[in-house]
This record gives sequence, C-alpha cells and structure tokens, in this order.
Amino acid sequence: MRVRLTVEYDGTNYFGWQLQSGQDTIQARLEAAFEKIFRTSIRVHGAGRTDAGVHARGQVAAATLPREFDPAELRRALNALLPADIGVLELSATDDKFDPRRDARSRVYEYRVLTGASRSAFEYRYSWLVRDSPELAALNYAARVFIGEHDFAAFRTLGSQEKTTVRRVLVSEWRHEGAILVYRIEATGFLRHMVRTMVAAMVEVGCGRATNASLSALLEGRDRSLAPAPAPAAGLYLVEVKY
Amino acid sequence: MRVRLTVEYDGTNYFGWQLQSGQDTIQARLEAAFEKIFRTSIRVHGAGRTDAGVHARGQVAAATLPREFDPAELRRALNALLPADIGVLELSATDDKFDPRRDARSRVYEYRVLTGASRSAFEYRYSWLVRDSPELAALNYAARVFIGEHDFAAFRTLGSQEKTTVRRVLVSEWRHEGAILVYRIEATGFLRHMVRTMVAAMVEVGCGRATNASLSALLEGRDRSLAPAPAPAAGLYLVEVKY
Repeated sequence: MRVRLTVEYDGTNYFGWQLQSGQDTIQARLEAAFEKIFRTSIRVHGAGRTDAGVHARGQVAAATLPREFDPAELRRALNALLPADIGVLELSATDDKFDPRRDARSRVYEYRVLTGASRSAFEYRYSWLVRDSPELAALNYAARVFIGEHDFAAFRTLGSQEKTTVRRVLVSEWRHEGAILVYRIEATGFLRHMVRTMVAAMVEVGCGRATNASLSALLEGRDRSLAPAPAPAAGLYLVEVKY
Repeated sequence: MRVRLTVEYDGTNYFGWQLQSGQDTIQARLEAAFEKIFRTSIRVHGAGRTDAGVHARGQVAAATLPREFDPAELRRALNALLPADIGVLELSATDDKFDPRRDARSRVYEYRVLTGASRSAFEYRYSWLVRDSPELAALNYAARVFIGEHDFAAFRTLGSQEKTTVRRVLVSEWRHEGAILVYRIEATGFLRHMVRTMVAAMVEVGCGRATNASLSALLEGRDRSLAPAPAPAAGLYLVEVKY
C-alpha cells in the first residue's frame, strides 16, 4: 500500500529535508516515525529537497507501507510521534507508481521579507529582515523579468551540476501581507538556491541599487559569479506541489 | 543616568522575565548585555514578570547607568549583544525616579487561540491550539463579564499571596485575526495566571461547555479550585504598558 502525505514544517531546527548522516533532517524524522509504527525501515520520498532552515507549508511525500493501514489512523499515529515543528496535514492512499518528485507538474515557493527592520524577535526565524524598504511596484516590475522559459544558470548554486538549467516560470509576483513583502513563484522546477538568489537580486532592484536592465542582463548572461549572494533560508517556504 | 527600554521577546526558550539562579531568563540576558557594555553589574527592572514561555511585544524596563551614554548607541550595542529572540525596540533617557512597575497605570495583554487545530508547525510556539471552534460572539459575551472592578481571587494561581486580588479591567474583548482568535485585555494590574485562567474559562463558554451565568458565578465565588486550569503560556503576550 502506497500513501501520499502533505507535510508542513518549521525548518529552523533542521538540516533541511534530505537524509544526511549525523544530521537532524525532516526526512529522517518522518522515516523514524514510520519505522516506529511498522517496525521496519520505510523510505519516504519528498517532492522537493528543501535546504537547512527552509520551511514547508505543503511539502508532498510518499511511502510504501508493508501492510494495509487506515490513512486517518496513520496520520494521527505519525503526528503523535513527530516533534511539534513537523506535522502531517493530509495522508491518503495513492497509486503504487506515485513519485512525488517526478510526477510534480509545478511547485510553488513563497519568500517573506520584513522591510525596515534589522531585528524582530518574532520574525527572525521566518523572514529575511531587510533594513531598506524596497518598493512593491519596483519588485513586481523586476519579478516579471523571470516569467516564461529561461536558462537560470546565473541563479543556481555555484558548483551544482543539473543536467539542464532551463526552467519555466508560471507565476512570479510580490504582494504585501501587513509589514511583510511576500514573493510567490510557481515554476516547473527549481535549481538549488534559485529562489533565494532571485529574491536577493530583485531586492537590489526594489531598493534602487540595480535596474531591471541589469537584472535582465544577469539572467541572459548566465554567469553565476555576477549574481548576489542568496537571501537567507529563513524566509523561504515550499508552499505547494501541483500534480 | 536612568534609561527606559521597550523590549520584545519570543519567550519560548526562556524561564520567564525574572532572574532565577541557574535559569535562562529575559532579565538575566538584559543584565548580562548591560554588564558587558559598562563592565559593572546593572539591575534591570521590568514592568511585568512574564512567566516561562510567555512573550512580550512591549515589555517596559528601566536601568540606571553608571555614566552618560547616547540612547541610540546604547540600544544598538544592547541589540548587538542580545540573542535574536530578544530585542530592544526603544530606549530613551527618563526620570531618575521612573519605576516601570509602580508607575504603570495599566497593562495590555493579548492571548492567541488557534481554533480547529490540534497541531501547527508554525503556531505551536505562539498560540493555544484548540481543537474546538468557540464562537466569537459567545466569547465576547463572556469577556464582558470581566469589565469593571472585580475581585479576581478565582483566577489567580493557587498559593499566590497578593495583598489584594481586586483589579480593574478597562478592556476585555475578542477579535478574529485570520484563523486566530485574539483576546485583548487592559487592566490596572494582573494576578499571576489571571489572563490564562480567564481565557480557559471563556473558551469553555465559547464552546458551549459552560454558560455566562456559571462564569459570573465563578468570578463572584472567588474560589480558585472551581476555575479551569490556565491556558498554555505560549498564547500569551505582554503587548503594552501604559504610564
């Protein structure tokens, strides 16, 4: 029996999604909970490998169980075993061949920026604190540069080796949520550090330290060494995976 | 030179405001930061002694410095030394006789309840997760029972020994903030666990497990043993101290 899970987590205290020996990761915590229930090791596959400190409101994962189990009961049992900063929001039976990573049509990430602040006791785990106040209109003008199919080589992690760095961006927009500026991006796929590097580059434009023309040139030039350092992990959320 | 501070903190990782030997407290962290700057021990007095796990958006404190110091510079120096979950929002020179606790005319607390949820990776540090869905109208009807001058003996911690348990409540109301129900109370003073016990009692009414008549009888009966257990510390915020 194969099950599909929707998982949320506050990533602050974890070394990201993926198993890493000697590190506390989300995947390790989920697999430990499954193992406790079924008394055998069970692999949990996720749709996206979030980095250390990155959060998720709608990570999707799948696991194959050694026997039938009531989905609602399994969800309760997992939640009872998981720490409070990881939660299984939904759990249902799924197709035996369901692959949360390969079957995904698109993923949605959001990035939160608290502007005009160098410190906040309540936001430092959940936002990038930016002392300047980038303009929403300028951010949205910059965000439109990324819509469509582009080679995002300039926005990947140095040294990463994806087969192709071309991705299709379906949504790229900023909005206000109270004092927070939220960036939302939906794309067919993402390169490592891509959203965080794009956010850092857009904030430069929003603050008037770069122009839309220079942002376009950065994208087209495909040279990672010219892009700014990625924005902090704390502001990033995997919001939804679409199938 | 005496200074007045407005302080915010995420209380999750602390044993409350007040100094306690061997425990990590907000007051201890502030005094350590002052000591590092002035190289002598400096007492920091707060307006309210928040309990372990309770947060503050507007705690007020005061300290007497051994010498003159530019307030803006002192604020920056303190913030550079404090952990990210404690921040000095404001700092200014004040009257030599300013006593943040005795001079306070009233204090404002808020309490956050996330309804319809037994778990949330992002709210468990900051709200009380209540599986039921109390009604806003019923909560506000209950909240009005507390307005005015009352003996709050039924809502204090068992074993606490305040001189008088009479307090004057100026504001007592609930509002929606998205999925969160927020209770706001302003009073001339508070007894230990008073807000959390009041919230627990009002939620009973809001869920239909108690009536306004029984709430009034609880207040008038002044018998702590009849009140519910206090709601969790995580939902409580010291929002403002008025002078």
